[in-house]
Amino acid sequence: MKIEVYASQTHVTEKDLRGKNCVVIDTLRATSTIITALANGCEQVIPVEEVGQATQLRISVGESVSVLGGERDGQKIPGFDLGNSPLEYGPEHIYGKTLILTTTNGTLAIRKAEAAMCTYIGAMINATFIARALLKTETDAVLLCAGTEGKFAVEDVLSAGYIIHCLRRESQGAPILVEDLAYACEVLYENSREDLMHAAQYGKGYQNLQALGMGQDVTYCLQQDTVPALPLVQDNRIILARQ
Amino acid sequence: MKIEVYASQTHVTEKDLRGKNCVVIDTLRATSTIITALANGCEQVIPVEEVGQATQLRISVGESVSVLGGERDGQKIPGFDLGNSPLEYGPEHIYGKTLILTTTNGTLAIRKAEAAMCTYIGAMINATFIARALLKTETDAVLLCAGTEGKFAVEDVLSAGYIIHCLRRESQGAPILVEDLAYACEVLYENSREDLMHAAQYGKGYQNLQALGMGQDVTYCLQQDTVPALPLVQDNRIILARQ
Repeated sequence: MKIEVYASQTHVTEKDLRGKNCVVIDTLRATSTIITALANGCEQVIPVEEVGQATQLRISVGESVSVLGGERDGQKIPGFDLGNSPLEYGPEHIYGKTLILTTTNGTLAIRKAEAAMCTYIGAMINATFIARALLKTETDAVLLCAGTEGKFAVEDVLSAGYIIHCLRRESQGAPILVEDLAYACEVLYENSREDLMHAAQYGKGYQNLQALGMGQDVTYCLQQDTVPALPLVQDNRIILARQ
Repeated sequence: MKIEVYASQTHVTEKDLRGKNCVVIDTLRATSTIITALANGCEQVIPVEEVGQATQLRISVGESVSVLGGERDGQKIPGFDLGNSPLEYGPEHIYGKTLILTTTNGTLAIRKAEAAMCTYIGAMINATFIARALLKTETDAVLLCAGTEGKFAVEDVLSAGYIIHCLRRESQGAPILVEDLAYACEVLYENSREDLMHAAQYGKGYQNLQALGMGQDVTYCLQQDTVPALPLVQDNRIILARQ
C-alpha cells in the first residue's frame, strides 16, 4: 500500500485522489469535532461551506432534529448552537441529531476529498481505527491535511505521521510505502511523540486557540486513539462506518 | 529574526514575501547549478521560463558570450549547450559567460521571489554562506522551496532545514524564530544529517535522476558548504553578491 500526504487541501487535485482511499485530517478542530460528535450519538454530520447554506439547510432538515455548529476565526458563529470545540459535542447536545457544520479549512477539505473512492474522517483521536480501515483493502491512500489557509499545519501532519505509524504497527509485515512528505510526517511524529504539545505550539492553530482561551481543545485533540469511531463520507454527509 | 518556509513556489503569494529576504531553493538541481556556475566564473545567470524565450534572448545577448542551459523532464533541451547538471558547469564551459537557464520548477520559483526585498539563491552546497548573508540584517526571511510540480520535495526542505541549522549556529545567540513548517524542516534535517541520501531517496527528484543515470548529481547536490558562493537576484538576473 502506498501512502501520500498533502499538507493542504489547496495542494491536491481530483486526479491525485481518483481510485484511492482518502483520510481528511483537520486536527484543530473540524475532524476531531466530527469524530467526537458521531461517537456521542450524532446521527450524521452535513458539512457545508457557507453560513447561509447552513441556516437554510437547517430549515429543510427540521429545527428539532438538527444542530448548527461551526466557527469563523475560531469562534462560534452568531445564531449557531455550538462552535467548533469537540468539548461542546457531548451526548446531551448531539445524541440522535443531524449536525450541520461549517468551518474554515476542514469543510473545504472534505468537499475536495469527494473525488476519492472512499473518504474517512481522521485525527489523532481515532488514528488506529483509521489505519485498520485502510488496511482492510490494498488500495493506496491519500492523507489529506486541511492545513491553515493553504499552508502546512504542524498538528495535521503530526496526525498524518501517527496514522502512518499505526499502519506499520497494524500491517502485519505488509509493506507500507511512503512518498517524501509522508516520510517527513513519520519522522516528525516519531521525533515529537513524547511531547506532541511542544511540536504543536509552532503552529498557528495552537497559537490561535491559546489566544482565544481554548487551550483545553488542543489537549483533547492531541490525545491518541481516545475515540473509537470511524466516520465515513457518503453522499455529502458523514456517518459512522460499520467496523 | 523570523523564518518561514514554503514547500512549493505555488504555495506562496506576493504578500508573503513583501519586505522580507527570500532564499530560493531547488536542490535538485536548478539552484545547485546556478551556484556552481557562478562560482566557476559565470558572469551572470538569466533565468527564463520558456525554451523559446531562452533561444531568442541568446541572439540579443550574443552567441559567443552566452551559454544556453536547462532541462525538461530532467533532460537537456535539444539545441541547448548544457543540461541542468551542476557537474556540467565547469569553468571550461562557463567562465566569463552569460548563462541563460530554463528549468521546470526552479526558474518559476525565482520569478515568484521577485516580490521579496532581496532574493538569494540557496542550496545545501552554500547554506552557511546564505545564513551569514541573512544574519547581516534583522529582516525576516522566507525560504522558498521550488518543490516538484506544486508538491513538497524532501531534498528542498532538507536544504531549508540545514540553512536554519546554520542560522542558529552563526547567530551568536540572537533568537531565530521559526513557524511550523520551518520547525518541521529543522527536525527532518537534524534527524537525517548523518545520512541525507536516505531521506532524499523518498523524493521524486532523487528517483527521476537515478532513473536517468544521474545519481552523481544527487551526491554532488547533497554536499554541505562545498561552494563558497552567494548568488543574488538583481534586475531579473543572478550575480554573485559582494561578501
